[in-house]
Amino acid sequence: MWATVIRGIKDVKVEEVPDSHIQAGHDALVRVTHTCICGSDLWAYKGVSKRRSGQRMGHEFIGLVEDTGADVSRLRLGQRVLAPFTWADGACEFCLSGLPTSCVNGGVWGLPGADGAQGELVRVPFADATLVPLPGNVPEAMMPALLTLSDVMSTGHHAAITAGVKPGSRVAVVGDGAVGLCAVLAARRLGAEEIIILGRHAARTTIARRFGATHVVSERGPQAVTAVREISAGHMADAVLEAAGTAESMRTALALTRDGGTVGFVGMPYGGDAVDLGQMFDRNITLAGGVAPARKYIPELLPEVLERRLDPSAVFDKEIALADIHEGYAAMDSRVALKVLIRM
Amino acid sequence: MWATVIRGIKDVKVEEVPDSHIQAGHDALVRVTHTCICGSDLWAYKGVSKRRSGQRMGHEFIGLVEDTGADVSRLRLGQRVLAPFTWADGACEFCLSGLPTSCVNGGVWGLPGADGAQGELVRVPFADATLVPLPGNVPEAMMPALLTLSDVMSTGHHAAITAGVKPGSRVAVVGDGAVGLCAVLAARRLGAEEIIILGRHAARTTIARRFGATHVVSERGPQAVTAVREISAGHMADAVLEAAGTAESMRTALALTRDGGTVGFVGMPYGGDAVDLGQMFDRNITLAGGVAPARKYIPELLPEVLERRLDPSAVFDKEIALADIHEGYAAMDSRVALKVLIRM
Repeated sequence: MWATVIRGIKDVKVEEVPDSHIQAGHDALVRVTHTCICGSDLWAYKGVSKRRSGQRMGHEFIGLVEDTGADVSRLRLGQRVLAPFTWADGACEFCLSGLPTSCVNGGVWGLPGADGAQGELVRVPFADATLVPLPGNVPEAMMPALLTLSDVMSTGHHAAITAGVKPGSRVAVVGDGAVGLCAVLAARRLGAEEIIILGRHAARTTIARRFGATHVVSERGPQAVTAVREISAGHMADAVLEAAGTAESMRTALALTRDGGTVGFVGMPYGGDAVDLGQMFDRNITLAGGVAPARKYIPELLPEVLERRLDPSAVFDKEIALADIHEGYAAMDSRVALKVLIRM
Repeated sequence: MWATVIRGIKDVKVEEVPDSHIQAGHDALVRVTHTCICGSDLWAYKGVSKRRSGQRMGHEFIGLVEDTGADVSRLRLGQRVLAPFTWADGACEFCLSGLPTSCVNGGVWGLPGADGAQGELVRVPFADATLVPLPGNVPEAMMPALLTLSDVMSTGHHAAITAGVKPGSRVAVVGDGAVGLCAVLAARRLGAEEIIILGRHAARTTIARRFGATHVVSERGPQAVTAVREISAGHMADAVLEAAGTAESMRTALALTRDGGTVGFVGMPYGGDAVDLGQMFDRNITLAGGVAPARKYIPELLPEVLERRLDPSAVFDKEIALADIHEGYAAMDSRVALKVLIRM
């Protein structure tokens, strides 16, 4: 089978690898029909997060069930399924308490020894618990929107939930990538009254406005803080959704937060471990968030996508064939593309 | 009048200073009857938090109203009052939303130009909003318990509230000072089922057990984490109350927290600004807390103290006269005393 592997810094390619197959009774084998490239894949691409040569890439996919192990009871062959970006057993204390990303038997696609989503087949452990069946009649045009539930829309939602966005909230979003844009959509969905996004790329801020942003701030750092202070008449944001993960974005996020407010951070933290604890202490700012438990959120968000009440599909602005995967990474790395879709 | 001032590192003394007097219509003048020394006073004493020579010391007090400004309407001369460790106008957006520590006109006793609690008289700005009247018939024996509401009991309560302690919680408390012990009491009051305190001083852990601690861990750092793992059969703590403020205590607090759990930090952060964001991200740990809005909590906790259902008074293990204030600081600095009471 063909699968995307990483060989070194900025060296991602499609290679022929041994066909995946059922290894345990709880496994399912899924033939990928839709996958994409994530902003977090770029950290590996750029060499910031370490990978072994030959590790698989990609963690977002929709596909068709091709085979199932003896213990799989909820899935039929040929059934269309959506995968969250992590697998989980559905039975441990963390799964049962709504945090499948901490599953004691869990993992993320692309870990050493695991399949990645950017390939023809994925072996899915604990398939009954991990995969979410889709209705059989979903039109092709809806697939990109559904695919966002695999990660970016669920992650934007996690930022909004953990930051405590509620009807009437004033929200600031730091990061104008796909997760930041989905965070805007999530904040609007939860009833935020004002949504301020920090971003300077016209194509992205246009989507942000369509997703519900009421204000766009093109400044960065202290200038962005000043701009938000003016927009909010000094009140700052009740909830700040941090979707970038750099030291500067975290610093900015804290500074944008109203005393007593919360930062929901979902940007993978690659900016070091410094946060201004003195500021958090003096101003009673809460820092919440983390890796999004997408499997928990999908059942809530999926019906809204199917009913066309929630449509994050605009985050995809480029489509490529799997064979051209390196072009997709390069386009996202250079910020030419926001998020790249692959149909197979 | 006599008041405690700081002149340099480990140089705290009682000096004669100009009598305080009403300066604004919303002021009250309070004659201090009970005050004490706080763990956070020691940061100034040791020179870790900077003070100007001559700055007043102390921020916890009970006293009698000696004079009031023209705009004070809720207080009578001679009335017994309890002060939170910060003053607040009671009218700004933060006061109205329950965060008086962020009051736009607020401050903490002992700031340059303000009186400290370890003196004969305190000028109290926004006295109607700041001071809490006590019943006239409170017995002297109850004063130490009431005085803890000024800071340490309210601060321990803030740790427990912000960490989300609820009936059945497993709680760990990092820090065996007066705030840590009050955090134990607060956790028990909120219905925690298991309360593990980290501490190695027998006198303190004895109080902790009396306050509701179910387990005492004398190890520190990684060994403490191992001990809590064993006690909790691997589950770790749902809520961790951080009441020390050092880099090590914050590192330990995060490590003791169950995935998806919360650290409520109320120890003034003097250990630098490094927290393990990667760990917080991977395990969805929330960091909440900060400077405690004591004025918000006092009305809730006060009746329980008056009815003898809540008694934190055991945190006081030494009493001195104001003239001997340096002895009190030295005793706490050397950990001979846990918390020092001064009756005047």
